[in-house]
Amino acid sequence: MSSEIYSHLYNKILQEGALDIYTESIYMKKNRPAVKLSVICKEDDLEKITEHLLKETSTFGVRYSKYDRVILKREFRKIKTIYGKVSVKLGYYKGNLIKVTPEYEDCIKIADNHGISFTKILLEINNIIYKEFNIKILT
Amino acid sequence: MSSEIYSHLYNKILQEGALDIYTESIYMKKNRPAVKLSVICKEDDLEKITEHLLKETSTFGVRYSKYDRVILKREFRKIKTIYGKVSVKLGYYKGNLIKVTPEYEDCIKIADNHGISFTKILLEINNIIYKEFNIKILT
Amino acid sequence: MSSEIYSHLYNKILQEGALDIYTESIYMKKNRPAVKLSVICKEDDLEKITEHLLKETSTFGVRYSKYDRVILKREFRKIKTIYGKVSVKLGYYKGNLIKVTPEYEDCIKIADNHGISFTKILLEINNIIYKEFNIKILT
Amino acid sequence: MSSEIYSHLYNKILQEGALDIYTESIYMKKNRPAVKLSVICKEDDLEKITEHLLKETSTFGVRYSKYDRVILKREFRKIKTIYGKVSVKLGYYKGNLIKVTPEYEDCIKIADNHGISFTKILLEINNIIYKEFNIKILT
Amino acid sequence: MSSEIYSHLYNKILQEGALDIYTESIYMKKNRPAVKLSVICKEDDLEKITEHLLKETSTFGVRYSKYDRVILKREFRKIKTIYGKVSVKLGYYKGNLIKVTPEYEDCIKIADNHGISFTKILLEINNIIYKEFNIKILT
Amino acid sequence: MSSEIYSHLYNKILQEGALDIYTESIYMKKNRPAVKLSVICKEDDLEKITEHLLKETSTFGVRYSKYDRVILKREFRKIKTIYGKVSVKLGYYKGNLIKVTPEYEDCIKIADNHGISFTKILLEINNIIYKEFNIKILT
Repeated sequence: MSSEIYSHLYNKILQEGALDIYTESIYMKKNRPAVKLSVICKEDDLEKITEHLLKETSTFGVRYSKYDRVILKREFRKIKTIYGKVSVKLGYYKGNLIKVTPEYEDCIKIADNHGISFTKILLEINNIIYKEFNIKILT
Repeated sequence: MSSEIYSHLYNKILQEGALDIYTESIYMKKNRPAVKLSVICKEDDLEKITEHLLKETSTFGVRYSKYDRVILKREFRKIKTIYGKVSVKLGYYKGNLIKVTPEYEDCIKIADNHGISFTKILLEINNIIYKEFNIKILT
Repeated sequence: MSSEIYSHLYNKILQEGALDIYTESIYMKKNRPAVKLSVICKEDDLEKITEHLLKETSTFGVRYSKYDRVILKREFRKIKTIYGKVSVKLGYYKGNLIKVTPEYEDCIKIADNHGISFTKILLEINNIIYKEFNIKILT
Repeated sequence: MSSEIYSHLYNKILQEGALDIYTESIYMKKNRPAVKLSVICKEDDLEKITEHLLKETSTFGVRYSKYDRVILKREFRKIKTIYGKVSVKLGYYKGNLIKVTPEYEDCIKIADNHGISFTKILLEINNIIYKEFNIKILT
Repeated sequence: MSSEIYSHLYNKILQEGALDIYTESIYMKKNRPAVKLSVICKEDDLEKITEHLLKETSTFGVRYSKYDRVILKREFRKIKTIYGKVSVKLGYYKGNLIKVTPEYEDCIKIADNHGISFTKILLEINNIIYKEFNIKILT
Repeated sequence: MSSEIYSHLYNKILQEGALDIYTESIYMKKNRPAVKLSVICKEDDLEKITEHLLKETSTFGVRYSKYDRVILKREFRKIKTIYGKVSVKLGYYKGNLIKVTPEYEDCIKIADNHGISFTKILLEINNIIYKEFNIKILT
């Protein structure tokens, strides 16, 4: 399958409701390097996504299995920075905040608009996150 | 495990009825690069293949799980080319032909016998496929 | 280094004149999975790109070496399809046309605008390429 | 997630009772190289290990599924070498000994203490294994 | 080559003066998955390390080539944390501090001694780094 | 590029005199998984092999660089086993025999002809190698 299709495929599959999508490099018989595409989706989206994969990729079959998941309860907030607001994703485990992650798209936009390096932006934002959310994280 | 064994192992496992076989590179504790071997087989072949893996590889255990599959209905045909006949695999989804793939072994034989590049052979054959099966594919 | 930075980094490095950029998965001492980033660039862009890598990634050093290249002479053309024009890249080896590749961005736009699958578009375009350029390719 | 954490994480997860742990390189949307961490554990350890993964890694979710396993019955023995004793792991399939593997930690210690290459030690030990266990292996 | 040897090999090669060492997964003819081991070393250590690789691995040949490097000027400092001192590595580009990285071994020791998660330790230390070194980094 | 071509390509490139050939999985811009093909060859074969790669793969360019090699002096011998003769490759470093490797093709043929497992054959042969060549190896 032409490798140029993946970016397009990822977008389409995510638009159809996939929760996650990723590829792994595998090696098949007769020295064939290949790509294993994995999609995580809700059971309701299985048929729709399977059809898309069969029609848009070179595969003749799609395997699937049921997985359970333990996920952090998620909450989204905006935090203030000197460059403007940035979204952060909060993750709670059994009621306790244990993880805060900035929205990278926002950081990239800031980096582009202000001509500052992405690394510096991230450093700033992680410091703000540290100060605003620290107490709960360390509890 | 000696890497020279894989080619032999692939052949043996496929002879025993495996539907597919592939490897992935994984990394284990203590900086050990390793190879994860995956075999897709029918439930009836599970014991036979498991035994083969335990006897012929360095592993002390084989994990398995049940997967469902959605597969295209397959049909095999011969198409005529100026170099002779070539097998093609047709894939139908809900009654519609959506995929036609040449048998690569045939293409390689032609390339070898006629001293033509594999790439050119493939180009020719894809064009014949396009003309013969196109209407149904595009419906 | 946060993996979210790569997409941004790829764009920046290409804007600075890199000819190509890619990553490979490597494993370092102490079980550290890591990413080796490779950039192909002209000698004149070496300093600029090295500086960018040192500032925007977590690395403390950049290695480089000189490579020679044999490349096909490239030419760009537009071909007509029933959906509009599509750019194709032609590759010549010692004066002979040996390769024609459609511009995938164009194919994706057509697929999106006409609600047709990318796979079908590609099939159509490869057929047009076959008919228009075939003689030279097969010589 | 910082790649330096893996060695520590592997140790912790194994201390909590995991049967095995390994990583694979995957590629996610938006050109993000990532690491998929897989842990094999008993059902009773699932919650404890899941909690550890959620707290100590950057993930917001852990997927799990049930696998069956066919494993060789294991037995541990000491064999004598000219450098001292070395542990070996014996694997039985349906009552027959089919595999004998030296304990690599022991071999490394010998290599270090005697200033001999690891390769030579292994050669010696495999020869002793061959002589001591050969009959059963070949039955 | 037995994968258990890698951890030992990494240590030995680093003791002999290698600057860096890492592995990549490659695929050879006849479906052989293999591991490509790369060592970065000074020219003076080339012979010693080559000999070690030839004697301790299964390879029959070692390839080498000369690379230039652009590296950040490095400086090591101790910073105070509520858990004790932690080493940090500072990286200067053309006289400007552009990177500060904690010594992960120190962080792991603290995590182990105080029963705190590695993630929290890192968060704390990155905050101290931010406050102590920020001005120079952002200039 | 169709992954089915690799086996054919490997054979052709080796027939043209390549010393070694292998692939690695890489990731390019726009989420494109790709395969990096590496060929080790003598300088005299460079042009012939480059031409083959440009004509038979989808690439528009081939990079190359000069490497030095330290290789073991090789010698081939036949050893007797109860199943017949097997070729072994001997490797000498500065005049000393340091490595003996059986020819895997021979072992596979024996395994197939006698219906014995490849693993057992290898065990037998390594034992014979150990007894015949051991003294020199340990010197």
